[in-house]
Amino acid sequence: MNILVLGAGQLARMMSLAGAPLNIGVLSYDVGSGQLLHPLTRHVFDQTLVQAIADSDAITAEFEHIPDEVLSQCEASGKFYPGKQAVKVGGDRALEKALLEQAGVPCAAYQLITERAHLDLAIAVLGFPLVIKTCQAGYDGKGQWRLYAEADVATVWAQVAAFLAADALHSIIAERMVPFQREVSVIGVRDRLGNIAIYPVTENEHVNGVLTLSLAKAIEGEIHQQAVEAFSRLASALDYIGVMAIEFFDVDGQLIVNEIAPRVHNSGHWTQQGTLCCQFENHLRAVAGLPLGSTEAIGPSAMINVLGQASIPAEVLSVANVTSHWYGKACRPGRKMGHINMVAGSEALLGEKLLALSAFLPGESYPGVAQRGGELMRE
Amino acid sequence: MNILVLGAGQLARMMSLAGAPLNIGVLSYDVGSGQLLHPLTRHVFDQTLVQAIADSDAITAEFEHIPDEVLSQCEASGKFYPGKQAVKVGGDRALEKALLEQAGVPCAAYQLITERAHLDLAIAVLGFPLVIKTCQAGYDGKGQWRLYAEADVATVWAQVAAFLAADALHSIIAERMVPFQREVSVIGVRDRLGNIAIYPVTENEHVNGVLTLSLAKAIEGEIHQQAVEAFSRLASALDYIGVMAIEFFDVDGQLIVNEIAPRVHNSGHWTQQGTLCCQFENHLRAVAGLPLGSTEAIGPSAMINVLGQASIPAEVLSVANVTSHWYGKACRPGRKMGHINMVAGSEALLGEKLLALSAFLPGESYPGVAQRGGELMRE
Repeated sequence: MNILVLGAGQLARMMSLAGAPLNIGVLSYDVGSGQLLHPLTRHVFDQTLVQAIADSDAITAEFEHIPDEVLSQCEASGKFYPGKQAVKVGGDRALEKALLEQAGVPCAAYQLITERAHLDLAIAVLGFPLVIKTCQAGYDGKGQWRLYAEADVATVWAQVAAFLAADALHSIIAERMVPFQREVSVIGVRDRLGNIAIYPVTENEHVNGVLTLSLAKAIEGEIHQQAVEAFSRLASALDYIGVMAIEFFDVDGQLIVNEIAPRVHNSGHWTQQGTLCCQFENHLRAVAGLPLGSTEAIGPSAMINVLGQASIPAEVLSVANVTSHWYGKACRPGRKMGHINMVAGSEALLGEKLLALSAFLPGESYPGVAQRGGELMRE
Repeated sequence: MNILVLGAGQLARMMSLAGAPLNIGVLSYDVGSGQLLHPLTRHVFDQTLVQAIADSDAITAEFEHIPDEVLSQCEASGKFYPGKQAVKVGGDRALEKALLEQAGVPCAAYQLITERAHLDLAIAVLGFPLVIKTCQAGYDGKGQWRLYAEADVATVWAQVAAFLAADALHSIIAERMVPFQREVSVIGVRDRLGNIAIYPVTENEHVNGVLTLSLAKAIEGEIHQQAVEAFSRLASALDYIGVMAIEFFDVDGQLIVNEIAPRVHNSGHWTQQGTLCCQFENHLRAVAGLPLGSTEAIGPSAMINVLGQASIPAEVLSVANVTSHWYGKACRPGRKMGHINMVAGSEALLGEKLLALSAFLPGESYPGVAQRGGELMRE
């Protein structure tokens, strides 16, 4: 079976590695260059997108920012999962908010902004502090402004107005800043028959908007139930097929959706070591029309992102049940180069593992490892 | 890091899949065609063996029947693991027997045979029944004769003599046929520092000399200890680096070595699902000079070989914690096409899984699945 992936980054690469054992070949369409290539070897094929669509048994995407005409071309083939609507929703906060409201899933109160009057309305209705975000792009913390008080409105508006003026396609949303205790996410998968499987909820740490660390501890009954409910509602509303990630703010035990990713997600990378059927395999199973695999965790798990580092000390691999996963990319400051996965028999043992790793992973490059390790051991 | 593998079959392919996450690129040397190719994509590179050896950080092998001059070329590079001697031992029963005697590891009594008088000597010293095997080739049950009584000697000798005459390199060994209760194997790994890690002993079923089913049940203390002892002695004797498999006959609780494979092995494929660091990853870790991974089992595991079947029913994947692993080969009768891996929380649950799978896997193509499932449930 051949699956065409829109996008040629690490997510497509990991799909390729998960697909080979299932007899699923993965071909990448690099949206930037327009080339068809093997996501693992980077070998470029002399093929057009039209041919690749025709030759594929199914089509999927590893990111949201894909030209509309490409999405339409794939949609027209009748074998694009999760399909154009889901990808659009994932790439546009205004569509995402509309979906959340339609599906009855809690999210932060918001206001669309295309002119100064809308910002004033947002301040009046939502109050300070506000977070102002671009609708169409800007994941990993890019394209965001925070507005804490009336005194800053003119400065922030000048930046936002310049951003809006730069491109007719730009649009902006203002959200009430949610006073959350932590950020969590859920990775779920829905197959062609509507069956759903959900991985344990993951606790995520971000620095400057970039994920640094994920923890999948024991399942928390009530939180898990809310995440399952949100996934089920959104997946049904979109008639979704494949893996979808939902990021939440945990506000006093109430999950509020931050954003939706209609794809495999960085906060689900721990499933490669922490479960027997990782998010990449389950996504391919769903998209290929195969039965879903189990989403049960082997034990408490963690993932540490390797950001802007060309290598890690070999000692990391000497800690039992720890492995690394590299993306084969050239090193640049802050770039996601790979990640470190681990699984343990208990949360305390997971804490021990993180503490052991912190001896080899300096805190300035790997924030939170020692701290979260210590917390888990004390909990 | 680049690792050159002598051989371009499924074992190299699975090494490639295990290597990519560790940032280890695997290149195959196809001994038959003399081509250098990517073991997953089969893309052929315009490169010579000399260049590939120079470009590699380490060299290893996925099978034993490699021309002497190629082995010498790799050995001369100083980066060939487990090295020429180990590969030779694995490919020649006479060398293997000599090593076993030297290392003090029990094996069946034997006699080398180059002329008729040696066969008579074997009959006199070892007695009937005898199993007669080629020394240099003939795994998977090929090139073997069984001799049960004096009346059959002339017939069998005619076949053996013809075989010896066909090629000056052919040689033959006669072994006392061991009255074993079962066949087991152990997969172990030794790193460059001499550290050793051993997977749980695996029980194997063969049909016509070809592996059909492996079971890695709970660790049996005394049997495991014997397997560890044999591995340690042989690995030390060879100053072995990498994964080595040892196949044994279990004769009333006493392990007798059947043969040694100086490489990853079919009876260790269950480790892909049944452990957190499979034999392929551990082999690469050892060969690359990285710390070894844990060889602990997640739970009782099994592997079913897919022989001469182009596909399996999709329902197989509907059984929890069951997955398939395909080799991307053209289908031919009896050919190893892939395998099915599974892991369970207990031996009884593993038995249930096998029974559930037997509903989709007909007994004539997948012998022993229903029977072993039933046995595990009753044990």
